[in-house]
Parts: sequence; C-alpha cells; structure tokens
Amino acid sequence: MSSESRAVFCVSDHTGVTAEVLAHSLMARFEGLETRYETRPFVDDEPKVEALVAEINRVGAAGSTPIVFSTIIDAELGAMLNRADAVVVGLFDPFVAILADELGIDPTAMVGRYHGVSNAAVYQVRLDAVEYALATDDGLGLDRYGEADVIVVGVSRVGKTPTCLYLAMQYGVRAANFPLTSEILDQRRFSDVLEANIDRLFGLTIDPVQLFQIRQKRRPDSTYASLERCASEVEIAEWLFRRGRIPVLDTTVRSIEEISATIREQASLERRLG
Amino acid sequence: MSSESRAVFCVSDHTGVTAEVLAHSLMARFEGLETRYETRPFVDDEPKVEALVAEINRVGAAGSTPIVFSTIIDAELGAMLNRADAVVVGLFDPFVAILADELGIDPTAMVGRYHGVSNAAVYQVRLDAVEYALATDDGLGLDRYGEADVIVVGVSRVGKTPTCLYLAMQYGVRAANFPLTSEILDQRRFSDVLEANIDRLFGLTIDPVQLFQIRQKRRPDSTYASLERCASEVEIAEWLFRRGRIPVLDTTVRSIEEISATIREQASLERRLG
Repeated sequence: MSSESRAVFCVSDHTGVTAEVLAHSLMARFEGLETRYETRPFVDDEPKVEALVAEINRVGAAGSTPIVFSTIIDAELGAMLNRADAVVVGLFDPFVAILADELGIDPTAMVGRYHGVSNAAVYQVRLDAVEYALATDDGLGLDRYGEADVIVVGVSRVGKTPTCLYLAMQYGVRAANFPLTSEILDQRRFSDVLEANIDRLFGLTIDPVQLFQIRQKRRPDSTYASLERCASEVEIAEWLFRRGRIPVLDTTVRSIEEISATIREQASLERRLG
Repeated sequence: MSSESRAVFCVSDHTGVTAEVLAHSLMARFEGLETRYETRPFVDDEPKVEALVAEINRVGAAGSTPIVFSTIIDAELGAMLNRADAVVVGLFDPFVAILADELGIDPTAMVGRYHGVSNAAVYQVRLDAVEYALATDDGLGLDRYGEADVIVVGVSRVGKTPTCLYLAMQYGVRAANFPLTSEILDQRRFSDVLEANIDRLFGLTIDPVQLFQIRQKRRPDSTYASLERCASEVEIAEWLFRRGRIPVLDTTVRSIEEISATIREQASLERRLG
C-alpha cells in the first residue's frame, strides 16, 4: 500500500454492508483523497477484535492513520476496537440514544438477532422477486406478466436486466422486462402482451451514441451496433413511449441504483395516486 | 396507518439507499416497535423539501411523531427538513466534522457529484460482473470459467443463483455457478470443468428438510422433491466437498447477504494468504 493512500476499514459483527454503504457515502465527500477499503465482516468475538486491532495498528504504522467505520453492536467489543491507533467511528453510536429516548424503548443487543420472523418474510419476498426477474427476463415467462409490479421496456442494451435484478434484490419489486424487438420497432406497435399491460410499462431510453459504444463492445462492426441502427431504434422507441403515454427515463448518465430508485418512486407514486 | 405504528421516513437527495440501509439497521435494535417505512429519494430542492415537511407533519398529526432519517447534504435543505414536527436524524452530520478534522480536507458539497470517474469504473466492474453471473448461471458459459473469482457449486435450490447475483451486484465479484447434476451425484465425481477449477470452487449445502420444503413448493410430490432424494443429494454433495477440500457453507439459516459476505471474506482471505 502506498503511504499516500488512506486505509478505510469497514468493520461489522455481521455482513458489513451497512458499514460499507455509509463509509463510501461519507468518504465521497472528501475529494481527491486516495482510499483503500478493507471490509472485515463477522467480527463478533474478542479474539477477532484483537486480531483486527493488531492489523489496523500494523497498517497505521506503515502509513497514514487508518479510518475505521464500525457497526459492531456489543459495547465491550466496540470499546476494544476503539483502542486501535486509528480514527474509529461508531456508525450507530450517535443515533441509538436519540432513538431510545424518543421511542421509550431500550435498545436490545442485536448480536445474533438478525433472523426475526418479519425479516424472514421480507427476505422471501426479495428472493421470490429475484426469481421472478429471472423467469421474466428479456421477454420470457409472458404468462407471469400479470404478477408484475412493473414491466421495463426498451431497446437491446439499454440496461433492462440489471435494473430489474436490482429492483428485485434491493426492493423486492417484481420487475419483468421486455425487449423492443425488430418486429415491434418495424411495425411501430407494442406486442399484444405489452398493450394488455400498458399501465405497468416503464420505458428506458439512452443516448444513441452511448448505445452505439455499448453495442460495439458486444458485436463490433455489426449492423446491430451501427450508429444508424442505434439512432433509429431509439427514435422509434421514444415515439412508442410517447404514444403509449408510458413513463420514460434516460439511462445515459444514470446508474442502475438511480434508475431503480426512480422507477420505484414513480411507480409507487402512481399507485398512491390511484 | 394505525396510530400505533411509527412512520419512518428515509429521505435523500439521491437514491435513498444509504438512508434505508442505516435506518433499518438502527430500527432493528428496538424490538416490538411497529414501523412503516416511507422512502423519499431525489429530494434535492426547496419545493420538494417543503412538500415533504408538510407530508411528515400530516402523518405526525394523525399518529405518533414520525422519525426521519436523512442523508440530504445541502445545509439549507437540511435545516428546512429539521423544522418538521418529527425526530429528524441527519445520518452524515455527526461524522463529517470528525473526518474533515482528521483528513484536513473540507467536505465538498456533493449534490450532483455522484458520477465521478472512479465511480464510473467501479460501476462498470459491477455491471460486467452481473452480466458474467447471468452468462455463467447454472452451468452455462463454461468457456468463461477462467474469468471466475469463485465458482459456487451445490444441489438444485440450495441458493446458488441469488448468491452469485448478489456477489456481482454488491461486490463486483465474478461468480459462476454450477449445479451438482444427477450425473455428478451418481458418479460421485465433479465434472472435468469443475476438477480443472477446483481451487475456485465454493460449496453450498443445506438442511435436507429445508431443501425438501423448498423443492415441494416448486414441484410438489415429485421424486425430485422427495425427502429421500433431498437427503441423498445433500449427503453426496457434502462428501464431494470434503473429498475436494473445498470450502463449504450451510445456507439453511443464512440470508443471501450473509452467504455472500462469507464467500467474499473466505475467498479474499485465501487470496491474501496465497
């Protein structure tokens, strides 16, 4: 590790996802800082904390003071970690007291409590949604479109599949996706199954030049990847979206997270309004 | 909404994922509390904050004081939100000053800065990993096994596909998966492609009774779903894992997040040791 890069440890007694997400969000605010992330999940007993503190101290001795983000809940393990030669930030610490005060409930020690019944139900919803997304990917499983919360439509390589998988995994949303095939584009009309579900469609579009670059990587110098074809497909797709009055989002400068959050917001907004 | 359930708003000027993850982690510590989550992403200007404050106040007037978790970065918008009749918790607030002090860097206003070049690179890695997981799902794409960070193996319905998708989406890990087919189980030997990649295999196993329940939902009363078949498949699978000396994890009481975090940790641990 270069002495100029800063080690950032994300430490958890569980998976470490919360610590990682918050650490990245926080560190993103400090521009120009070179960082190296290390995640240490399942740090849930004294020997593990001890070994980790030794590791952090070694890293610190070789360079800048490490930054440690921790979601460890056990107070004694947390105190052990605090003794590392590092900036140790307990990500839950400032909030637990505020919430306990407002709620009038003592926070419980959560170690080993990650599998409540309500979590199991939520969990099954998400697993089922992932399975649904796979079963209805790219125009498969048309007989299951009736179960869809949303049906994502767009030209090939616009980002439908990862969006649907993310919607399923993160939000438990049942998202099918259907490609705008050459038949649909040539005839300038949605297929019957799309027309029958038009109030559930959500269109994705993209800048034709970016689509061209994506397709060139996949099938270089094909007609499919030509700029002319990309431009024409996007134009017809956008025309179909307008005519069907379906919501549409440009994926050009958006991440899958942003696309998914937007679809979720707009879809639930429509449900609330209905 | 029942007056006994507590409204929890997750508010963000961006997707809201960070606010949701931390809110759920924090609220999980207060057992027996009935909560209703509302996520409000992309709250990034004054009219939107104003509308949201009005909504929060309406909800609060009808029941308990709402709890609002916010990752809004703009100080003025944050101050507007603080005026809601609610417990408003700024999730970044306690940490930014500590980090600025340690790093000697002023935090930048991050609104609209979510698309740095480094993020784009990370993002592409994850998208490629998702595509890889789909291309190598369930024994597909054997010619691409050379690119795998890990190859997840196990009997049908043990949880291979969601695990690989999560590893890809969350961590950018290239995870292929291969089913332990009846041919492999009958012959009691891995196929050639698995043998050739044995140092990359990671085995998943499961309690036969849980496997039985999962398979019964899928194909009721089939031989495939019989308890006898489930028990025999799991037994042979575990024998194959032991003989091949490949790491193995029991998925019975573990979520996909836990399975994925464990695989990631053990795989990278091996890389570090190597």
